[in-house]
Amino acid sequence: MLEQIDLTRKLGKEEYQQKMEEMEPALARLQRECKALGIPVIVVFEGFGASGKGLQINKLIHPLDPRGFEVFAIKGENEEEKMYPFLWRFWIRTPEKGRIAIFDTSWYRKVSVERFDKKMSKEELAYSYQEINTFERALTDDGTVLIKLFLHISKKEQKKRFEKLLHSKETAWRVNDEDLKRNKEYESYKAMNEEMLERTETACAPWSIIEAEDRRFATAKIFSEVIRILNEKVKEKKEQKKAGEKGEKGGEEVKVPEDFGEGLDSSVLSKVDLSLAYTKEEYKEKLKELQERMSLLHGELYRKKIPVVLGFEGWDAGGKGGAIKRLTEAMDPRGYLVSPTAAPDATEKSHHYLWRFWKAMPKAGHITIFDRTWYGRVMVERIEGFCTREEWQRAYREMNDMEASLAHSGAIVLKFWLQIDKDEQERRFNERMENPEKQWKITDEDWRNREKWDLYEEAVNEMILKTSTSYAPWIIVEGNNKYYARIKVLESVVRAIEERLRE
Amino acid sequence: MLEQIDLTRKLGKEEYQQKMEEMEPALARLQRECKALGIPVIVVFEGFGASGKGLQINKLIHPLDPRGFEVFAIKGENEEEKMYPFLWRFWIRTPEKGRIAIFDTSWYRKVSVERFDKKMSKEELAYSYQEINTFERALTDDGTVLIKLFLHISKKEQKKRFEKLLHSKETAWRVNDEDLKRNKEYESYKAMNEEMLERTETACAPWSIIEAEDRRFATAKIFSEVIRILNEKVKEKKEQKKAGEKGEKGGEEVKVPEDFGEGLDSSVLSKVDLSLAYTKEEYKEKLKELQERMSLLHGELYRKKIPVVLGFEGWDAGGKGGAIKRLTEAMDPRGYLVSPTAAPDATEKSHHYLWRFWKAMPKAGHITIFDRTWYGRVMVERIEGFCTREEWQRAYREMNDMEASLAHSGAIVLKFWLQIDKDEQERRFNERMENPEKQWKITDEDWRNREKWDLYEEAVNEMILKTSTSYAPWIIVEGNNKYYARIKVLESVVRAIEERLRE
Repeated sequence: MLEQIDLTRKLGKEEYQQKMEEMEPALARLQRECKALGIPVIVVFEGFGASGKGLQINKLIHPLDPRGFEVFAIKGENEEEKMYPFLWRFWIRTPEKGRIAIFDTSWYRKVSVERFDKKMSKEELAYSYQEINTFERALTDDGTVLIKLFLHISKKEQKKRFEKLLHSKETAWRVNDEDLKRNKEYESYKAMNEEMLERTETACAPWSIIEAEDRRFATAKIFSEVIRILNEKVKEKKEQKKAGEKGEKGGEEVKVPEDFGEGLDSSVLSKVDLSLAYTKEEYKEKLKELQERMSLLHGELYRKKIPVVLGFEGWDAGGKGGAIKRLTEAMDPRGYLVSPTAAPDATEKSHHYLWRFWKAMPKAGHITIFDRTWYGRVMVERIEGFCTREEWQRAYREMNDMEASLAHSGAIVLKFWLQIDKDEQERRFNERMENPEKQWKITDEDWRNREKWDLYEEAVNEMILKTSTSYAPWIIVEGNNKYYARIKVLESVVRAIEERLRE
Repeated sequence: MLEQIDLTRKLGKEEYQQKMEEMEPALARLQRECKALGIPVIVVFEGFGASGKGLQINKLIHPLDPRGFEVFAIKGENEEEKMYPFLWRFWIRTPEKGRIAIFDTSWYRKVSVERFDKKMSKEELAYSYQEINTFERALTDDGTVLIKLFLHISKKEQKKRFEKLLHSKETAWRVNDEDLKRNKEYESYKAMNEEMLERTETACAPWSIIEAEDRRFATAKIFSEVIRILNEKVKEKKEQKKAGEKGEKGGEEVKVPEDFGEGLDSSVLSKVDLSLAYTKEEYKEKLKELQERMSLLHGELYRKKIPVVLGFEGWDAGGKGGAIKRLTEAMDPRGYLVSPTAAPDATEKSHHYLWRFWKAMPKAGHITIFDRTWYGRVMVERIEGFCTREEWQRAYREMNDMEASLAHSGAIVLKFWLQIDKDEQERRFNERMENPEKQWKITDEDWRNREKWDLYEEAVNEMILKTSTSYAPWIIVEGNNKYYARIKVLESVVRAIEERLRE
């Protein structure tokens, strides 16, 4: 989930002030609503050292009524706490209905900082994840809103901040040797955090990743996430109340600025550099070389009985077909299957939505290439309302679980998103319209989908963020130049296979 | 969960026939309803070898429309299946909406038979439980009814059945060396099954334990469980439909005999031998000896920093107070706390129901004795409607999780149910009424609760079955004779501590 985050995002002072002027009173109103409705709220701040947790907590509590919240700074367990079960000190600090508990680091210490510092057996680690998920489930089932924020900064930025702190006598004590070690071994510590996020990303308590290099951006993003989640819960609770007390008047609508989150969404797609391109000559040369390697690797996969799952998604006319073709040209036709995904037929509809994909999964040594995938659930089905909000929200976890099963059984799992911009799509659509041999490729539905570009973009950003995992990453393919896209796909597949074979 | 099952239960031929005459057509009707409502159903048969799974499946399908179900006999993975992820062969066999899939053993092979035969790393085992729970969650979230039956027989009965099968040439092939080994090492195999049941007992897919020594009893119990669960789901689905199609007529009521399950409930309490008693002399002698041992052990616990959690539940006037007194008399007052549980106060009510118990948990080396416990959730709160059905059903899992957390952190966790019969309770109530010094102990509420004896009995049976675990067992205390009860409590505590200290 961290890999895809764009840490270069910034917010200008003016825009920041404008946003905060709207969001601060909105948050204060939501606090009052939560109190009135008896909703307990927990906000967890996790993230890299020096990512600004303390400062951000101060910003967050600024508009809040101080009688209604409490901040807990969680350190390593003291002697007293060591004598209790791991979760004890958190259970006893869970807020009562209508109050807000803010945790400056939390139960996640155990599977991040403490895991890094102390080492932990795999079994103990697995058990800790289980305890955490169980704990969060018990709270959210009972009506607690659990907001989990992860503040992300780069190795370089972290180093800069540590150095600045060390430079002054007044702040040097805030940096210890362990902090510096975690900066030095940033990649390994980041991988632990990535695993933590993956294992504890649930439908009942999802993570919000905060781009924390620019402090104004981080503050605004934290406010917008907290407001969005509280607002949803308040609405839900009011509807429940209304349904319960038929005829009675529901509470007043909470006034939340409509566009409070605008420009703050984690946008994976917007940072994609679509100018990347190869010339025809470069393309031909690379293609030849990669296809030869792929051909050899395919035999190796078969011999070593490694299954491969490749999923292709992307904008209409994004170039999926062409990329798949260049990939399969290099493969032995007895060892792969291209599985196209259309709208589900009657039999498929009467099963779980994952059923038809399970049926098409490759056996050991084989490759299945999915031309469109199970991710339809959180794109077309979400946008067209073919499934409920609850169903597509749950789906992120279900799809991660399925891919984890595949990876656990030894499969290589890669997912490609073929990205083009809106202009390029129009150009390609028109080209298809004009070329009699390509006309079959373009339908009215394509044009209709195009009108929903913004909705899809939002859905895709969320999807990539929530389902890009260490065991089944999304690879964003810059697709305006077809040569570039095809080579990147081939290269990524070849690299993933080579890495696996080296293990 | 297996420990508490009464395997001596039988059903006479006549009663059996009478029950089946009602239940067979009811099941057929429910199958039609499920078809009409588009509910997919999975019935899983697990249990000891020779417990009669094949025979019982035959009985179950007898009244069913053969066009609407399928039976899958699951063996070890064949060469083809070995090339896929573990769950693949089950995912592809999940039934479509309105159909019933019956599994003669299932995905649970992996954590029972295969675990026993092959050995498995702890990590792999933990992962398998996780995959199974994830799989079942995905199905039930999507609307599948998942009925999990575990057929239980004793070591002796199993041996008898194997011998009978081996005796005849026609059936000898059905018993292999592994079967015999699992019989020989029955206790160790049973412990694996117990763990399996504990780890996969969830609110969305609970287990039904079937007493399978008497085949008629088993058949009737299986029918009653399947009917009960399907009936609940059909009702729920119809209500959802009604809520959706306001004004439209709901489907017809399914006719299910009201008392179809009568006499088949797993009754833990009914098998308790309340005639057990000690004379005053026996009592005094045993008490003295046990209290002396307890006193020494308490010091050891403190030295070794082992926490102890003792929960006391039981009928009003069941003798909890007296038993607790005899226990604490032998303890160092600085090392234990008796935590009485009354109705929750305002602060407690505005937290999660487990919060106040977490707060009272002992630290390392200390003992907390709970006079009434968190189990109020599934007794008084269930019966008086202080929480919703969904809440108390979820609570079994939550309480098991809490106790697992305690046990994982090193605690000894024991739960006592003080059992007396209704006559004995009346005698004690009257005694309290007549004795001015005991009058404070009896209130109108006690008499009112007494009227709900049958409801409590049902709730207690279910509670003990679902929350008696290897790491936090229920101990049923035969309480009509107070001397006997007090000694049994002391003995159980002493034994549990001694066992732990020997480890």
